[in-house]
Amino acid sequence: MIPVIISGGSGSRLWPVSRQADPKPFLKLSDGKSLLQNTFSRSATLTESITSILTVTNEKLHFRMNNEYQQINDKSIRCDFILEPFGRNTAPAVLAAAIFAKENYTEDEIILVLPADHLITDLDAFNSTVAKAVEMAKLGYLVTFGINPEYPETGYGYIEADTATQIGSGFAVKRFVEKPNLELATQYVESGDYQWNSGMFCGQVKTFLAEFEKNSPKLVRDVHKCLSNSVVNDSDTGKSVKLNPELFINAENISVDYALFERTAKAAVIPCSIGWSDIGSWLSIAQTLPKDANGNAIIGESILHNTKDCLVYSTNRIIAGVDIADLVVVDTPDALLVANKNQTQDVKHIFEQLKKMQHSTSELHQTVHRPWGTYTTLEEGPFYKIKRIEVKPGHALSAQSHAKRSEHWVVVDGEATVLHKDKVVRLLANESTFIPAGDKHRLMNASEDETLVIIEVQCGNYLGEDDIVRYDDMYGRE
Amino acid sequence: MIPVIISGGSGSRLWPVSRQADPKPFLKLSDGKSLLQNTFSRSATLTESITSILTVTNEKLHFRMNNEYQQINDKSIRCDFILEPFGRNTAPAVLAAAIFAKENYTEDEIILVLPADHLITDLDAFNSTVAKAVEMAKLGYLVTFGINPEYPETGYGYIEADTATQIGSGFAVKRFVEKPNLELATQYVESGDYQWNSGMFCGQVKTFLAEFEKNSPKLVRDVHKCLSNSVVNDSDTGKSVKLNPELFINAENISVDYALFERTAKAAVIPCSIGWSDIGSWLSIAQTLPKDANGNAIIGESILHNTKDCLVYSTNRIIAGVDIADLVVVDTPDALLVANKNQTQDVKHIFEQLKKMQHSTSELHQTVHRPWGTYTTLEEGPFYKIKRIEVKPGHALSAQSHAKRSEHWVVVDGEATVLHKDKVVRLLANESTFIPAGDKHRLMNASEDETLVIIEVQCGNYLGEDDIVRYDDMYGRE
Repeated sequence: MIPVIISGGSGSRLWPVSRQADPKPFLKLSDGKSLLQNTFSRSATLTESITSILTVTNEKLHFRMNNEYQQINDKSIRCDFILEPFGRNTAPAVLAAAIFAKENYTEDEIILVLPADHLITDLDAFNSTVAKAVEMAKLGYLVTFGINPEYPETGYGYIEADTATQIGSGFAVKRFVEKPNLELATQYVESGDYQWNSGMFCGQVKTFLAEFEKNSPKLVRDVHKCLSNSVVNDSDTGKSVKLNPELFINAENISVDYALFERTAKAAVIPCSIGWSDIGSWLSIAQTLPKDANGNAIIGESILHNTKDCLVYSTNRIIAGVDIADLVVVDTPDALLVANKNQTQDVKHIFEQLKKMQHSTSELHQTVHRPWGTYTTLEEGPFYKIKRIEVKPGHALSAQSHAKRSEHWVVVDGEATVLHKDKVVRLLANESTFIPAGDKHRLMNASEDETLVIIEVQCGNYLGEDDIVRYDDMYGRE
Repeated sequence: MIPVIISGGSGSRLWPVSRQADPKPFLKLSDGKSLLQNTFSRSATLTESITSILTVTNEKLHFRMNNEYQQINDKSIRCDFILEPFGRNTAPAVLAAAIFAKENYTEDEIILVLPADHLITDLDAFNSTVAKAVEMAKLGYLVTFGINPEYPETGYGYIEADTATQIGSGFAVKRFVEKPNLELATQYVESGDYQWNSGMFCGQVKTFLAEFEKNSPKLVRDVHKCLSNSVVNDSDTGKSVKLNPELFINAENISVDYALFERTAKAAVIPCSIGWSDIGSWLSIAQTLPKDANGNAIIGESILHNTKDCLVYSTNRIIAGVDIADLVVVDTPDALLVANKNQTQDVKHIFEQLKKMQHSTSELHQTVHRPWGTYTTLEEGPFYKIKRIEVKPGHALSAQSHAKRSEHWVVVDGEATVLHKDKVVRLLANESTFIPAGDKHRLMNASEDETLVIIEVQCGNYLGEDDIVRYDDMYGRE
């Protein structure tokens, strides 16, 4: 079996922690691991036989995802990637995964498709549900995971089971229903025949391919053509396929529900209760967290006076609550959210508005992830900008120059190896150097195990990130 | 007439904007001026004859207050200061002011005592009330300003006028009452004979001294003795008396209400309606600010969705409100307050708790004011600290050295004059220097009109502010 982790969507309802460049899979809950890492661990430990995991994601997230995986990849599982230049919904992603699995493994292989950003708290139940679904898949079915509904949620699609047609431990699917209104949702929950559509499913590669061919033949041709004309990189940790953007754009922008599940006769459902949440809003996060005696879920430093049933999430400052209730307060270095806990789905309106305004907080955090590490903007003045730059052991920024800004570097931890014009110097903590505008330079961390931290003070009349000429880059960036 | 501005109290109910080192007088409202500056301007423009203003405040606030005054002191009014080593309530402060006025001006002079941190929106009414009060003071009375109550506030003391005994445009005082309960407050407001005790009053110097002598003779002796044994500095802008701490501690810690007004037969009241607020809570600030169509008072950058009747106060990050109402959200670089708008007096509990915890946010802002300018802590790491240091034209830090930290300085605006050991160098923007631990150094701004801004990266194992040896200081600091 090959777990396929699908990562898409911006997590706009989890702003300000989620942003376009920092989508929901990277959200860390109280265990200190991201949703993505939990999805990876969950997949890796399903059975002894798991030796590779395939991820379909945006190409910009490749380095960061692989980095998150390798931090916890104790079993040295192979990590393959299909890299999308842009999102085209789930059908092209799942189809590409199935074709990749056939070409690189076998068509008898079972793929288990898992969204990267869900939470599952009952791992035993999840494991046994997967085992049952695999048995159903071996019978030639495409098996969806239907979550036994706990309440009439109107934000999810539902699956109606054909309870007269048993398939293994589950049932054939009678129909898929889109997000219902409250009245319908209540009927569904009361009937007992409907489950929440979790977006998780499994099936044999050959079943997926045959059913896609039958129900969406043009999509199959388009994705095939795109895959055959894409660049493949092989590394120590796995293969990565960078989808050709000019061909990928031809693939229909359609969900796997529309393109496959609602059309195929092979859909089945395994009803389950696995402590599932799609972490779709701050309310659902609040529900997953432990509470204090007053019902408050607290992350970070806070001081609360007569405060009840709130989520208080702080990153680097203290939050005081005074005589408040049922609020979500989420604080990040450059943006703060205060929301009614029962209306947190409306956070997406804020996100959309910020995007329209091209406000920096819709796109980036103050800490930006790069293949070599991170940089954090500490302050911007009219003619200067201050960054903390952290370079991972064995990594290096590109060799580069800037036309309009000079850079002052002070090493505060680790050891820097600096190429300046054609000379290489080494700088320890409490040592500094100056790179005048126009000079070619490169910041490197030659250490095997120690992170390099420098404080950079940029000076100049123009300080935009686009004032950069790259001469050489370890990560294939232009 | 000599206006006497009295500054005391920590403004604990206005945390996180007010802090111990940044009390309420420095609060800036929407006009960009501080409450203190508004009090000064109000005093300076009362009549043509105002040529000096006396301020009684803590000695630590002297430089900063004088700096705030000089920014707006168009008429070159003389600014005298009586500097307290610690607070001893209002009676010693007012008495010291009266004695100072007698010794430096004349005992016929009228002093008008004004708290530094009140808001008065109807300046015409204020000016004409002062004129009436002055006439009453000339009859030998100590005239309190009684605010016609708008509602039965339980947070203020009340003054009952003896309406049968008219004095000039006002009345004799029948009695002073402490903060009443709601029932009593309602009776007071309905009777029409009670006014809010604003804490503003005036009288001739000789009346104050005679009545203090009659009612609190020991206090008069103690304050006299303290004043005669205190250091006086004369400068271009005025005199400053630094009260002797060993003698000032003997002065009774008592309010002018207890020590004088409740005992004297000379108390009078002038009822008035002058748009007065003591800015005692975030609610009262919200009430003074203009509102948007949904009743929100907004300072700084925010984006609101279905948000009503909130105060949203941002300094350097964007605040999003989603489906909230009747909240006060006050954000500062290192602390955030979210409070029920109708319970903002409870903010003092947060402040008290933070003080008990010795939490940095009860004492200092990230930007700290010094006689020479300001420093702002941008980030603290385990072995480094980054500050932005701004030095006013013509000012200089003390000559100093640090045992445990080195300092890297990058000039980002203006021109630095740096003494390093026994050499002086000049640095322009985009130039830098390094001060190793142990080296004597001094940062100076020799410019006449340009602020110097440097970024300082400190490196070392210990980075506390107390690692400093001062060799020479323009401001008499040890």
